[in-house]
Amino acid sequence: MDRYLVINSDGHAGLPPERYRDYLDPQYRDEFDRQLEVRLAALAQASELLEMSQQSADWAKDKQHGLAGAWDSDRRTEVLDADGVAAEILYVDGLTERNSPPFGGDLGLLPMGADPELQWAGCRAHNRWLTEFVSLDPVRRIGLALIPPFWDVDQSVKEIESARKQGLSGIMLPHLWQNQDPYHHPRFDPMWAACQDNDMIVHFHCGACPMQDYFGTELFGQQPGAEPPTHLPGGLGIFVTEIHFWLVRPIVFMIWGGVFERFPGLKAVVSEGTSIWAPELLALMDQRYSDHHFTAKLGNSYTAHIPLKPSEYFNRNVRIGSSCMARREAEMAHEIGVQNILWGTDYPHPEGTWPFTKKLMIETFHGMPEGDIGAMLGDNAVDFYGLDVDKLNPIAERIGPERDWFRDEVA
Amino acid sequence: MDRYLVINSDGHAGLPPERYRDYLDPQYRDEFDRQLEVRLAALAQASELLEMSQQSADWAKDKQHGLAGAWDSDRRTEVLDADGVAAEILYVDGLTERNSPPFGGDLGLLPMGADPELQWAGCRAHNRWLTEFVSLDPVRRIGLALIPPFWDVDQSVKEIESARKQGLSGIMLPHLWQNQDPYHHPRFDPMWAACQDNDMIVHFHCGACPMQDYFGTELFGQQPGAEPPTHLPGGLGIFVTEIHFWLVRPIVFMIWGGVFERFPGLKAVVSEGTSIWAPELLALMDQRYSDHHFTAKLGNSYTAHIPLKPSEYFNRNVRIGSSCMARREAEMAHEIGVQNILWGTDYPHPEGTWPFTKKLMIETFHGMPEGDIGAMLGDNAVDFYGLDVDKLNPIAERIGPERDWFRDEVA
Repeated sequence: MDRYLVINSDGHAGLPPERYRDYLDPQYRDEFDRQLEVRLAALAQASELLEMSQQSADWAKDKQHGLAGAWDSDRRTEVLDADGVAAEILYVDGLTERNSPPFGGDLGLLPMGADPELQWAGCRAHNRWLTEFVSLDPVRRIGLALIPPFWDVDQSVKEIESARKQGLSGIMLPHLWQNQDPYHHPRFDPMWAACQDNDMIVHFHCGACPMQDYFGTELFGQQPGAEPPTHLPGGLGIFVTEIHFWLVRPIVFMIWGGVFERFPGLKAVVSEGTSIWAPELLALMDQRYSDHHFTAKLGNSYTAHIPLKPSEYFNRNVRIGSSCMARREAEMAHEIGVQNILWGTDYPHPEGTWPFTKKLMIETFHGMPEGDIGAMLGDNAVDFYGLDVDKLNPIAERIGPERDWFRDEVA
Repeated sequence: MDRYLVINSDGHAGLPPERYRDYLDPQYRDEFDRQLEVRLAALAQASELLEMSQQSADWAKDKQHGLAGAWDSDRRTEVLDADGVAAEILYVDGLTERNSPPFGGDLGLLPMGADPELQWAGCRAHNRWLTEFVSLDPVRRIGLALIPPFWDVDQSVKEIESARKQGLSGIMLPHLWQNQDPYHHPRFDPMWAACQDNDMIVHFHCGACPMQDYFGTELFGQQPGAEPPTHLPGGLGIFVTEIHFWLVRPIVFMIWGGVFERFPGLKAVVSEGTSIWAPELLALMDQRYSDHHFTAKLGNSYTAHIPLKPSEYFNRNVRIGSSCMARREAEMAHEIGVQNILWGTDYPHPEGTWPFTKKLMIETFHGMPEGDIGAMLGDNAVDFYGLDVDKLNPIAERIGPERDWFRDEVA
């Protein structure tokens, strides 16, 4: 094939907020109506705080046609074709575009402040809609069910099994547990078992952070209409410095907690947190695992339950969704592990590569070995998700980026 | 000089718990008596949890003479002479040796669960004792006052000024603020001003972590005598993986918050968290500072108040106390910044280099350029702390490690 098969590891899809009403179980629609206005105000305020409103509005001005691909099936296909993307992983939408389910069933999926029953209702509404959206093009759309795992592990197991039957291929979990149990707690074992047994890949997606630390306790969690909050200086700089730490933290807990030892077939992905942290983190964990010289006072019982080195679990069970991948990351690919990297666009977000995806992927990868480029752009995802290349290759042959474009003598 | 001038950036000193009574303001002694037994039990339990009791007991068995150097002046001098250490920075003692002040005035200095008035009383008791201890050998002992900063910034300022007058040279602050304000909050500005104006270097010391995440909420914060807690698997592995993140976090907040811009003469040290995290962290912060491509939706107002790059503040205002430094760190020294590294022993802790300090420092540095070795072992500390080499050199000439020992053809 003269073209690369490209899989976007980081797509977002969701309805405009008001349109989730029809996908809610009927008994929650009154509450939905009551909360809608407050929620839209809160979304606007958070967006304002992150200084995103004006930036995003400017960026979005001439892109309404393509942005509707967040929920419109034909538009989405148009965008994918133009981007050269054969298929993609579909997360719920985020803060910027506001196409989020109600009741805290959003990309952050935070437990604190959520009403468990309502949050479940919001997640189920999204899972229902996404099931429809995926069914319109099941070859190119790999949908992730939203699961709020803290309230009821049995219910999580049922939703995972049901989502699999409906045609979804994985789940997204919140990476901040806040005041709930972290992911090395054995109470989650039935959920990991359900994911392993149903081939449902676990996903964590960048974004949620302890915002009250960055911007002040006065700010986050306040009621709409309250006094303008203190805006601590530098909050955004801290946010973009720490954001990957919070994303990857569940994996650190799961590795040390022996989750991947007990569930060797469990697969997990961390997305949109860059991949540059991987070599240092894995070296550090392996060193902590192997070299007890300066941790001697802690004994060594904490490694007895995991016979493999942390990096071995990582390389076997985990992949990195590397969205809007920088040239620097591509140059570090062999250090990170080429096989671990899943390239992504983050469409339809303003920080993503759309509508310049082809140009940016060439900037990232030009001049590199074809095998490496192909692996990161799509082949790794094909392997990890078990995708059907017989169905995908014909699409790639039609719309994929040409291999020639990446050759330095051509570019 | 044929010998290196060695400064230990990480020494611990403190009285056995019961002996802090005499240094407390009299009105707190009854409360001290009431709490002593409970506190000793809690120390034992925490030590048990971290699997340190048996390890530490075994290690300490034949070392009682030297371990008394935590509070005994002559023993301390003996140990320093044998270690080849001319002078040292003195933190309060930690969990392992239990030589901690009362009322939460310990190495963690955590706000959560502390009574502000009592925590201040505990800190003042330590600062009083440490002032005496330093006065017995002011050339070789650089003492750090304990300051619990969250309760009352004015009181912190007064304690800083008073500690300086009494002969202490810096302060230690808690690096976990828990439910209090983080260090980029402008309310701390008078404290930073006091440190800058009084040449009091700010120190953070590794150890405190969100233990309830690692070991379960049932465990930490429980009352002595309660049911045996759930011990989540892998907690210790997570602890040693994340420990440096929590240590360095205040510096990240201070840099982005513009603290070092507003107080260019303020100096800070992070200790015993290794130094291997530095290159990646600084590269990341600089990249976030300079390259807005993929953070465009956040605008760029978050860098307007800091005209220098994050790494420039770090290199100007911050040093890394690299305790029990591994060969790997020494090999990375130029990447980390040789001038940023302050070697340390962590005496009298079991994970420290004592009583094999000379042997271990040679393992770490052998074969490297003399200028680099000298910088990391002591010269950087001399510069940063403004130490008096005229008084220190004669000590080093008597007890310092010989330069010859580090040459590969000799070793």
